[in-house]
Amino acid sequence: MIQIVVIGSGNVAHHLISAFLQSTEIELVQVFARDRNALRQFSGSFAITNNLNELAQADLYLIAVSDDAIGPVSMQIQKENGLVAHTSGGVSIDGLASHHRRGVFYPLQTFSKNKTVDFRSIPICLEATTPGDYQLLEKVARSISDSVHAIDSNQRKALHVSAVFANNFTNHLYKIAGDICAENQIPFDILKPLIQETAQKILTLSPAEAQTGPARRHDATTIQRHLDFLTDNPKKIYQLLTQSIQNDQKL
Amino acid sequence: MIQIVVIGSGNVAHHLISAFLQSTEIELVQVFARDRNALRQFSGSFAITNNLNELAQADLYLIAVSDDAIGPVSMQIQKENGLVAHTSGGVSIDGLASHHRRGVFYPLQTFSKNKTVDFRSIPICLEATTPGDYQLLEKVARSISDSVHAIDSNQRKALHVSAVFANNFTNHLYKIAGDICAENQIPFDILKPLIQETAQKILTLSPAEAQTGPARRHDATTIQRHLDFLTDNPKKIYQLLTQSIQNDQKL
Repeated sequence: MIQIVVIGSGNVAHHLISAFLQSTEIELVQVFARDRNALRQFSGSFAITNNLNELAQADLYLIAVSDDAIGPVSMQIQKENGLVAHTSGGVSIDGLASHHRRGVFYPLQTFSKNKTVDFRSIPICLEATTPGDYQLLEKVARSISDSVHAIDSNQRKALHVSAVFANNFTNHLYKIAGDICAENQIPFDILKPLIQETAQKILTLSPAEAQTGPARRHDATTIQRHLDFLTDNPKKIYQLLTQSIQNDQKL
Repeated sequence: MIQIVVIGSGNVAHHLISAFLQSTEIELVQVFARDRNALRQFSGSFAITNNLNELAQADLYLIAVSDDAIGPVSMQIQKENGLVAHTSGGVSIDGLASHHRRGVFYPLQTFSKNKTVDFRSIPICLEATTPGDYQLLEKVARSISDSVHAIDSNQRKALHVSAVFANNFTNHLYKIAGDICAENQIPFDILKPLIQETAQKILTLSPAEAQTGPARRHDATTIQRHLDFLTDNPKKIYQLLTQSIQNDQKL
């Protein structure tokens, strides 16, 4: 059994804790939470501390806190026997204090507290400074996921930017589409099958192959009618994305 | 049995034909195709003509051709007994010639020729000029779909713009994300679970509730790091969408 201490009680920590509790290869020995109420749904499944000076002995300390807190928290971890890894897409491995062994254990998914996810399909991106540490992270990752990848800090930075496009910005386009519907007394539900199909298409086609629409087919009449309809940021976004789709075709 | 003639042999026509062939309430009496080879997968299931002057008698003539061709094609349909409807999101009901009864039968989905879709979940948006014609379109729509909506030409224009954001532009964001991965030797597969989850989230949360990311939490450090990483159109898109997400929060 690999002994793990999780530091944090936010969305990522919650989902990791749930996954570890179901793994037969992991012993979750302790969780650090500033407010133990945040972990009440797990009552009794593991020890809880709110003091970083009282961390238990473990093979791996997983820091699942906000990006800004990763450095300060890792500074306070005095357990020099364990590997210390953070779970962030946005922070280099060098963001961890250097007095202990360092690693990254980044699950690439959008987590909501009240929505369960199938952790086995979530890609986990690993980085370590020695082969032994990588193997430890890999063993932990494989115990909860079927999708484990070696991704260094430069790649992880690229991946994090990609994820902003694929997740945050995509969701904002859904928001704009929903706003246009609402302003015209159209139920947003009417767009949901289209949104699902758009996401599913890229499981079998590349995004370049899946691209359709007025920009792709250079349908200037439709583009102009749409621009006449729009105002403000949605209009600017329409123009820029149309131009970007058409630029891509020239390459 | 409602008798239907379909005019066209592109993606939308193909999917409509497949759905009608499975419906017990519809008799597909004829399909017009300029090139009958385009319909070879359906061999023998219905009559085919390549001459608009030889259309069969029917209750409904469904025009599933490119937007530009809808007007000219409808001009040529001389069958004055039938209702003539187009299937486009981008054309007003007035885009049909006025010598016959007019309607719109717009299935809101992205169709690829080689990818089957479950038509019963596809929203069909209807418009007609009389209650009788609406009822005919509704009966046809309900025979192939469980999601049927009365949407007038103004609403349909709004819906078409929304669909560009929810489908075409979203797919382009997937493309940008994929390009960033490719440039950094990261398999695009790693983003697919995130893309699926982003689409599924809005089935239970509104897009405003589902919004996360550096823009949403005003994480200026991460935003700047991402902007430093990006160039050209992706950089401009990152800036504009970040600004748009932050503007939304002020409202």
